Amino acid sequence: MVAPLLPTAPSDAPVDGRRARGDRTRAAIVAEAVQLASVDGLEGLTIAHLADRLGVHKSSVHTAFGSKADLQVAVLRRTREILIEHVIAPSMTAPRGRPRLLATGESWFAYLAGGVFQGGCLLSSAAAELDGRPGPARDELVAVMTEWLEFLAGNARAAIRDGDLRRGSGPEQIAFELQAIGLTANWHHQLFGGDAAFRAARAAWSAVLQRPAPRI
Amino acid sequence: MVAPLLPTAPSDAPVDGRRARGDRTRAAIVAEAVQLASVDGLEGLTIAHLADRLGVHKSSVHTAFGSKADLQVAVLRRTREILIEHVIAPSMTAPRGRPRLLATGESWFAYLAGGVFQGGCLLSSAAAELDGRPGPARDELVAVMTEWLEFLAGNARAAIRDGDLRRGSGPEQIAFELQAIGLTANWHHQLFGGDAAFRAARAAWSAVLQRPAPRI
Repeated sequence: MVAPLLPTAPSDAPVDGRRARGDRTRAAIVAEAVQLASVDGLEGLTIAHLADRLGVHKSSVHTAFGSKADLQVAVLRRTREILIEHVIAPSMTAPRGRPRLLATGESWFAYLAGGVFQGGCLLSSAAAELDGRPGPARDELVAVMTEWLEFLAGNARAAIRDGDLRRGSGPEQIAFELQAIGLTANWHHQLFGGDAAFRAARAAWSAVLQRPAPRI
Repeated sequence: MVAPLLPTAPSDAPVDGRRARGDRTRAAIVAEAVQLASVDGLEGLTIAHLADRLGVHKSSVHTAFGSKADLQVAVLRRTREILIEHVIAPSMTAPRGRPRLLATGESWFAYLAGGVFQGGCLLSSAAAELDGRPGPARDELVAVMTEWLEFLAGNARAAIRDGDLRRGSGPEQIAFELQAIGLTANWHHQLFGGDAAFRAARAAWSAVLQRPAPRI
């Protein structure tokens, strides 16, 4: 069973002023790195460019992150938190099952349209980039995407149990189809611009989550 | 009206031996560049690395392609031809409309599973990479993807006209949903491996292309 995709408490709380400053520095570096990576890719992220954008010396970034792989993993962890804040959390007021999946679609499309990332959804572009590159960043991405698919499948399972879904498909199939819609809304919007991507995505999302026909 | 996604005749046939050799050189460079770009990305493609892989001097690659942007455009044009050879052409024996879309799904999933590209479908990864980067490579990608969506939508239009599709959706909606399935089959297979991606993709493809219920 995969843990629910919800915020986790920091395991290492600051113990003194220097530690707290270090944490703030890391957070500032990661915030900028998330935006840079959404445009230039996780592989295109260089410590030199990042230091330049932040107006600090390269050694400050090196001190905070020992290696580029460490920085990439930190960027993916922060992106997971952004996904939770913007997509999962707003859906949590809706009941588990079909209502929560409908709310997730709305928050997801709003998040993709809203320009949270300068260069489009970082998790999508990271997948295209890391798929052929084994290592800690790819492992982190696979973990986040597994969690996300399980969030979708868990709610699909509840919806099926409640008799709230039209099709005979299993929860993993529903999760695949919903993931396909969001991934492609991002793809279409990034390539063609405008709102056509989100209109098509909303119609497709409703079609997958259609209620069963009432029995007469 | 967008031109059909079919092979185009070369506009500049070789006129002498030197020209023919130049074309063979370009073709060999592009073939290697397609594989490199599928792993390292179009931006990660360097003339130095490419020359090294081909065992030639950098100047040979420079002579064939004046700039990195020229090389990227040539790689995308070659990738369009690969898409035609592997996905479109095998579907052309089936009649236009729903039968051709069913055949396209089969050839598309076989192509994604078959490892045509070392690092996953280059058109998918190029989209994630180029979306924030205006220029000739992005323009070429948008043109190829427009053509591809029109191929799907044109067949969906024929299927709707033939009364062969279940839903009330328009052809562009069907094209979006089919594109979503293929894009996500590649995404899932590249991240998680195995055949689960293609099983889910085939089931989703059939669901979108379900025939109307017979009238009694």
